[in-house]
Amino acid sequence: MGWVRTFRNNQFIALNDGSTNNNLQVVVALGKFEDDLLKRITTSSSLKVTGNLVASLGKGQNLDLNATSVEVLGDCDAEKYPIQLRNRPTLEYLREIAHLRFRTNTFGSVFRVRHALAFAVHKFYNDKGFVYMHTPIVTGSDAEGAGEMFRVTTLPFDNPPKNEDGSINFKEDFFGRATNLTVSGQLEGELAATAFGEIYTFGPTFRAENSNTPRHLAEFWMIEPEMAFYDLEDNMNLAEEFIKYIIKHVMENNREDLEFLAQRLADEEQQLPQDKRSEMGLMEKLEFVLNNNFERITYTEAIDILRESNHNKKKKFQFPITGWGMDLQSEHERYLVEKHFKKPVILSNYPKEIKSFYMRQNDDGKTVAAMDILAPGIGEIVGGSQREERQEKLEKRMKEMNIPVEEMWWYLDTRRYGTVPHAGFGLGFERMVQFVTGMSNIRDVIAFPRTPGNAEF
Amino acid sequence: MGWVRTFRNNQFIALNDGSTNNNLQVVVALGKFEDDLLKRITTSSSLKVTGNLVASLGKGQNLDLNATSVEVLGDCDAEKYPIQLRNRPTLEYLREIAHLRFRTNTFGSVFRVRHALAFAVHKFYNDKGFVYMHTPIVTGSDAEGAGEMFRVTTLPFDNPPKNEDGSINFKEDFFGRATNLTVSGQLEGELAATAFGEIYTFGPTFRAENSNTPRHLAEFWMIEPEMAFYDLEDNMNLAEEFIKYIIKHVMENNREDLEFLAQRLADEEQQLPQDKRSEMGLMEKLEFVLNNNFERITYTEAIDILRESNHNKKKKFQFPITGWGMDLQSEHERYLVEKHFKKPVILSNYPKEIKSFYMRQNDDGKTVAAMDILAPGIGEIVGGSQREERQEKLEKRMKEMNIPVEEMWWYLDTRRYGTVPHAGFGLGFERMVQFVTGMSNIRDVIAFPRTPGNAEF
Repeated sequence: MGWVRTFRNNQFIALNDGSTNNNLQVVVALGKFEDDLLKRITTSSSLKVTGNLVASLGKGQNLDLNATSVEVLGDCDAEKYPIQLRNRPTLEYLREIAHLRFRTNTFGSVFRVRHALAFAVHKFYNDKGFVYMHTPIVTGSDAEGAGEMFRVTTLPFDNPPKNEDGSINFKEDFFGRATNLTVSGQLEGELAATAFGEIYTFGPTFRAENSNTPRHLAEFWMIEPEMAFYDLEDNMNLAEEFIKYIIKHVMENNREDLEFLAQRLADEEQQLPQDKRSEMGLMEKLEFVLNNNFERITYTEAIDILRESNHNKKKKFQFPITGWGMDLQSEHERYLVEKHFKKPVILSNYPKEIKSFYMRQNDDGKTVAAMDILAPGIGEIVGGSQREERQEKLEKRMKEMNIPVEEMWWYLDTRRYGTVPHAGFGLGFERMVQFVTGMSNIRDVIAFPRTPGNAEF
Repeated sequence: MGWVRTFRNNQFIALNDGSTNNNLQVVVALGKFEDDLLKRITTSSSLKVTGNLVASLGKGQNLDLNATSVEVLGDCDAEKYPIQLRNRPTLEYLREIAHLRFRTNTFGSVFRVRHALAFAVHKFYNDKGFVYMHTPIVTGSDAEGAGEMFRVTTLPFDNPPKNEDGSINFKEDFFGRATNLTVSGQLEGELAATAFGEIYTFGPTFRAENSNTPRHLAEFWMIEPEMAFYDLEDNMNLAEEFIKYIIKHVMENNREDLEFLAQRLADEEQQLPQDKRSEMGLMEKLEFVLNNNFERITYTEAIDILRESNHNKKKKFQFPITGWGMDLQSEHERYLVEKHFKKPVILSNYPKEIKSFYMRQNDDGKTVAAMDILAPGIGEIVGGSQREERQEKLEKRMKEMNIPVEEMWWYLDTRRYGTVPHAGFGLGFERMVQFVTGMSNIRDVIAFPRTPGNAEF
C-alpha cells in the first residue's frame, strides 16, 4: 500500500510508502486492467497492490512488483492536487501547504533525517547514563532574560480581574500568578543535575521576538544537558563528542536521504554566482566535521584575529571590530568559522558583561567560563558555560543584573545545600537539522513552523 | 564525587552520585582526618574523595572506598537542610520542595524509571521505522474539543487592540490570530502519517481544567502514534505490544529501582485497611501485564457485564448502569479491570455520541471504531481509534458536531488527495509512569507539576 508518485506509459507505477524516497516500481501489464481503473492511478492517489516481486528488467531499481490486483484506496484529482511537479514548486510555496510537503522527496528526506537526529540524541545520553528530564513548559519564572516571552493565561481580555491599583490581578489566573512559555529548561535542569549528576532535556522552547528571518522560530526544540562535577573543558569535550555522534548516526543510518539532500543543495547552489557557492558539498562538510577537532580559542584570541584580519582592515565588516568587550555579530562568527579556520570553532571565556548571570566568574574578574560552538553556514549552534556554583558570587551578580533573588530561592538552594561545580549547554535542534540537511531556511526543517503572523495547521 | 546521604560513627560515609540508590561506602579511618573536616561531612554536603577500593568487611555492600583524601565541595547546614529524614517527610511535603526531592531514594527511583520509559518509547518506534514528529505546541486550531485550553498571547491586558464591534482584535496578536496551547498532536500527526506511513509524537500537551485531583495535570506529556494502512485491530495490537515493550525494558534495565519502589508501595499499603490493599505487589503486577493478553471486549459487552454485575444490582455504583449509550465512569472502568477481569482491558466500538468527530463510523450506524485501554489502579491509559478516512462521512459528522469545516481545510485535504485507512492512539505518559512506579499521585511522577494555582520552580 502506498501513494503514487508517477504513472508512466499506463504501465509503470512508482509507489511510495513514505519510508524512503526509493519507490517500488509496480508493473501493470498492458491490457490486464480496466481503463476505468487505470485512469484513477494519478499522482498522490493511494493504492493497494498485490503481485509478484521479480527482478526488474528496467534500470533504476532491482525489483518490480508485477501486479495481479490493484485497488484504489483513495482517489486524487490530478487537476486539483496542490503539488504539480511540472510547475517546480518552490520551498516557499510548499511552506504554505506544509501538510502536503511531506510527500515530496525533499521533505521526506528532511524529516527522516530529523527523526534520526532526535533518536541519536536520546541514544547518546541514555548510553552515557544521563537522565532525561521533562522541564516545565509553562513557567512562573522569567528570570533568565533570554528573550521576550509569551504569556499563558485563562484570564478574559474583556474584563480581566484587577487589583485596587488598577493593575491586572494575576492571582486570579489559572496558576495563581502570571505565567509564560519557557525560554529554556536550564535552571530546572540544574536542579536535577545536582541530584542525578548528569541529566538532559529535549523539549520545546519559545521566543516572542518579532524576528522574521530564515534563522528564527517562535517555537523550537532545544537539547540542554547539565552535568554535576563538569568544568568548562569537560563541557566542551561532551558537546564536541555529542555533535559528532549524532552526525555519525545519521551518516550511518540515513545515507540515501543525505545523498539526496546533498544533490538538492548542489543543484540549488548552481543557481548562485560562483563566489556564493559553498566550498564543500554537504557530505564532504559532514565528513569534515567528523574527522577534525573543533578549533578551540578564547574570545580574547578571537578579537585579536578579527582585528588583524584583512577583512576588518578593508572595512568589510558591517560592524567594525572596536575592541575587547564588544559582542560578536553573526558576520564575525561566520568569518572565524568559514574564512579563517574553515571548521567548527569553540569560543570560550567571554566578557562577563555580555553573558548571563549564572555563568561562572573567572579569576581575572573580567570574563566568565562561557563557551559557544559556531558551525559553518549556521553560526551559533551551541551555547553553554560552567555555572557559578559559589552562592555569594552568584547572588552578588544576580543583584548587579537585577535578577529577583527572592523569587529564585529554589535555584539558590542548590548552592546552599551541597553545591557542586557543574556545567551545561544548549543545542538548538532545528539549527542542527539545518546543518545536517543543508536546508537554508529554518522553517523547512520543522513540521509546522511558528513565526510572527503564522500559526497555520 | 557525590552527595553525602549519611555519616555514621564519624567513620562511614554513604556517598551518592545520583546514578543509583546504592551508595558507595567511604571509610574515613579514625584519627586520619581533622575534626574540622569531619564536622563538615553532613547529609547533602558534597564531597570529592580519593582512595582505594577494597572488598568491604561490612554487610550491605561489596566494596568500600578507603579514603586517602576528602575534600568538601559544598557544605550543607544540617539544621537548615529542608529534608530531615528523622521527620519522615511526606510526599506532600516533598512536593513543596520539588527541587530537592530528587535527592531522596523514592524520587531518584521514580525519575530514573521515567527516563527509562521515555527511552524505551523512542527505541520501540525507531526500531519499527516510525518517524518522530514534533507537532506544534502553539496552535490556532481549537477544533478537537478535547478540553479547555490555555490562551497564548503577547497582547497587553491593559489596553488590548479592539475591533469596531468592541471584540478583541487577535489579528494584532503575535501570530495574527488567537492561539492556544495544544491539547493533542493527533490531527497534525495524521498529516504526517498520510505521507510517512507510520509516525509518532512525544511532546507536552495541556488542559486548562480546574481539576485538583491526584490524576490530573495542566501540563503533561503524551505519546501519539498514527499509522497509515492500520485498522482498529492493528491499532490494538500495536498498543498492547508497545505497553509490554516499555514495561519489559524497565524490568530489564531498572530492576533495583523497581524493587525499591515495590517495597515503598508495600510499606505504604501496610498503613491501609486490609480491604484497600492491592492484591498484587508492584513487581507481580508488572509481570502479570507482560505475561497475559489484554482482555478485548466491545463497549456493548462491557455494558452487559456491568448491568448484570452484583455490584450494580446491589446499587454499589455511584452512577447506576442505565443502559447502552451511557458514558462509562471511572468506577465502571475500575470494576471491569480490577474486579471482573483482573487485567488490562481493551474496550472498543463505543457509541458515536460519546466519542470524537474523527473516529471511523462503523456500519451499524451507531458505533465508532474507538478503543480505550484500561489499566488496574490507573484507569484509562490509552485512547485511540481508527480514523474516518471517507471525506463525505467525515464532513457530515463534523457539521453535526459543529466543528468548523473551513478552518480545518488542511485536515480534510488528506481525505481529498489519496486518502487511506489509518488509525492511532494516545498514551498519557505520566499515567504510564504511575502504573510502573506505583506512585498514587500524578504530581509525584513529573518533575515540576503544573496544576491549578501551582507553577512554582
